[in-house]
Amino acid sequence: MRTYTEYLTFHTKKHREFINITPQVESALAKSGIREGMILVSAMHITAGVWVNDAEDGLLADIDEWLEKLAPFRQDYRHHQTGETNGDSHLKSLLVHHEVIVPVTAGKLDFGPWQQVYYAEFDGQRKKRVVLKVMGE
Amino acid sequence: MRTYTEYLTFHTKKHREFINITPQVESALAKSGIREGMILVSAMHITAGVWVNDAEDGLLADIDEWLEKLAPFRQDYRHHQTGETNGDSHLKSLLVHHEVIVPVTAGKLDFGPWQQVYYAEFDGQRKKRVVLKVMGE
Amino acid sequence: MRTYTEYLTFHTKKHREFINITPQVESALAKSGIREGMILVSAMHITAGVWVNDAEDGLLADIDEWLEKLAPFRQDYRHHQTGETNGDSHLKSLLVHHEVIVPVTAGKLDFGPWQQVYYAEFDGQRKKRVVLKVMGE
Repeated sequence: MRTYTEYLTFHTKKHREFINITPQVESALAKSGIREGMILVSAMHITAGVWVNDAEDGLLADIDEWLEKLAPFRQDYRHHQTGETNGDSHLKSLLVHHEVIVPVTAGKLDFGPWQQVYYAEFDGQRKKRVVLKVMGE
Repeated sequence: MRTYTEYLTFHTKKHREFINITPQVESALAKSGIREGMILVSAMHITAGVWVNDAEDGLLADIDEWLEKLAPFRQDYRHHQTGETNGDSHLKSLLVHHEVIVPVTAGKLDFGPWQQVYYAEFDGQRKKRVVLKVMGE
Repeated sequence: MRTYTEYLTFHTKKHREFINITPQVESALAKSGIREGMILVSAMHITAGVWVNDAEDGLLADIDEWLEKLAPFRQDYRHHQTGETNGDSHLKSLLVHHEVIVPVTAGKLDFGPWQQVYYAEFDGQRKKRVVLKVMGE
């Protein structure tokens, strides 16, 4: 069994931003030389998410609006008594989750036709990281 | 380390349908010969989900109603400007997630008494696939 | 490839309770001797969750209130026709998910500065279990 680990760094211009990281995941897989196994794609922060879905701008705007409805910014989160203002970012992260596992078959991401890996920044304008861990043979 | 890969195909009669695929996951595990490791069960589409929960018809109806409340069908999703009508199916997929990892111990799914693997179709009446990837020894 | 399996047992005093299990996950990793790979942390029940987020009491109270809003207790869930009263516990489990995968690098949990693993009990005051499965080399 072999493993390969790589870190991606983000520093978004906007507070919330959704970034297609499929090319970076494919690049890490190629460097790993692994042909059968899995890749863990996991945000290293508690105000960010990772998901697999469509690369369609209208849908991304729908997702952003929907997340704000289900996990809205509010002044009065108890978490804000610590001085933070990002309670909603934590809830959004819990909702979409902070990681996915991508299957690897015959040296490629074993995805259906429309699947893309997204990094979802919910509290940006600062340095954030994602760990990519390829595991297999 | 060994891996074993299998694909399940679905073509549901209804637009939304929840299917217990535990027997298929157990069958793939048996064929793999793997006794210690994990099984990734991952939908290959962006309008489907995979979860582990109870096989109880009342609960499944509750889940369906609840998902429609949190991620309702709407005419006016931006995604529909592409000609699609399944914006809600994408949001439901994000909410329940498209994959699970099942632990394998002593050649069996290492589940508690009520855990079952479900495929959740949110935009059916067409061909869809799930990849099963067993990894271990 | 090596695997190491351990079970955690919970019997919470309250109906809902969120417990930081990072020390137990680190302890299992140390016992496994594995230095590169992943740890699956998976609830063995359908009314419990596992997540990675911040260890901050105000936030935990916010999460509890938020989950009750999105997946509230109700008398009239269909699931309750079986005699159960925990329909909301199932929905809360689906919302936050029942498992996470933690990357392992150089013999440590490969976490960012604030990441902690939580067991979320949604129907406690009875015996519940979590399986920890370390896989790697």
